[in-house]
Amino acid sequence: MPPWPRTADGPHPPRSGTAFELKAGNILTVYDPLGGQVGDLLAINKADTREMISSGRTLDYAETIYLTTGNKLYSNRSNVMLEIIEDTVGTHDFLLTPCSEATFRLCYDNEPPHQGCHGNLHHALEPYGIAEDDIPIAFNCFMNVPVDGATGKFKVLPPKSKAGDYVRFRAEMDLIIGLTACSAPASNGGTFKPIDYEVTAG
Amino acid sequence: MPPWPRTADGPHPPRSGTAFELKAGNILTVYDPLGGQVGDLLAINKADTREMISSGRTLDYAETIYLTTGNKLYSNRSNVMLEIIEDTVGTHDFLLTPCSEATFRLCYDNEPPHQGCHGNLHHALEPYGIAEDDIPIAFNCFMNVPVDGATGKFKVLPPKSKAGDYVRFRAEMDLIIGLTACSAPASNGGTFKPIDYEVTAG
Repeated sequence: MPPWPRTADGPHPPRSGTAFELKAGNILTVYDPLGGQVGDLLAINKADTREMISSGRTLDYAETIYLTTGNKLYSNRSNVMLEIIEDTVGTHDFLLTPCSEATFRLCYDNEPPHQGCHGNLHHALEPYGIAEDDIPIAFNCFMNVPVDGATGKFKVLPPKSKAGDYVRFRAEMDLIIGLTACSAPASNGGTFKPIDYEVTAG
Repeated sequence: MPPWPRTADGPHPPRSGTAFELKAGNILTVYDPLGGQVGDLLAINKADTREMISSGRTLDYAETIYLTTGNKLYSNRSNVMLEIIEDTVGTHDFLLTPCSEATFRLCYDNEPPHQGCHGNLHHALEPYGIAEDDIPIAFNCFMNVPVDGATGKFKVLPPKSKAGDYVRFRAEMDLIIGLTACSAPASNGGTFKPIDYEVTAG
């Protein structure tokens, strides 16, 4: 595991986003350096960016809304993009879109506006030709959204992740990855912390 | 309510899809004429077809995975597209993508292949310039997907809808609607039946 933070405010500063590439077979580890922080993850087929991660297909094939080690993340063409190969937390969300300017307008009207993960992903992925309207539901690492099965209601609670926890993925195709340190107060227990990641050859 | 079936096999035959337009303010009623049948519904902004119905935004703002009367269906730009104004069933799904050729390949390998709702929606919406890759999670009218909140696991059970049950929406903008009579065995209690709809001025 890498030391944290790598820089003054971490390699992936609070309320930021980045994009990078994975080769098929690469291992991506997403770390929560300080604990209690969400990172939204998108995956896009490098060879054809119209193929993207799909919550609806992934949940359908996994037959669960809570994904962890052994689950595969599918694209909108039903191809496997990533497999979760290790997970020290076991609680992530794949129901909700990245937080956005609209999230702050509609859900946090007492907070200063922020472009959120949606804006951060949009800017990080723009160089790859990804349109803002095309940003789908992200795999929200460490996001804790328990659902009441009887009523359907859910809560956004602080992540269960502790300092140094991680979730590890193997790329099943050449991918463009978008990754954030999430900007929404409720998702992160009210404080904004860095997210770190590491890519290894696999 | 219209009589069913309007034609020999209903106005919206089993395992089929169609597309039509709504004006802002129009009322769309989706009927289950015989009971126990799912209809997948998509909504697209007629003025700019890059704006589409978004499960992830809708669930986020509704704070529930089970939507019914009073809930609003949002777009990927966080605008309200439809509001549910009446609902005689109260059980619908907004987690899973339309069934597709891949659904049959991956989940029903003992069944003859079928293009599913995804293929039906693709063909119905192609004249409006909607690309197959852009078809999002649909609002699956009458689809019964109870989630176990403790484990996250869900089941696809037969719809709770009885003959003549319906869900009624008001259009909040000019829309293109895609609507199917669903093709997946589990979703429809193992038999394929028609879906009907009616548009009134509102």
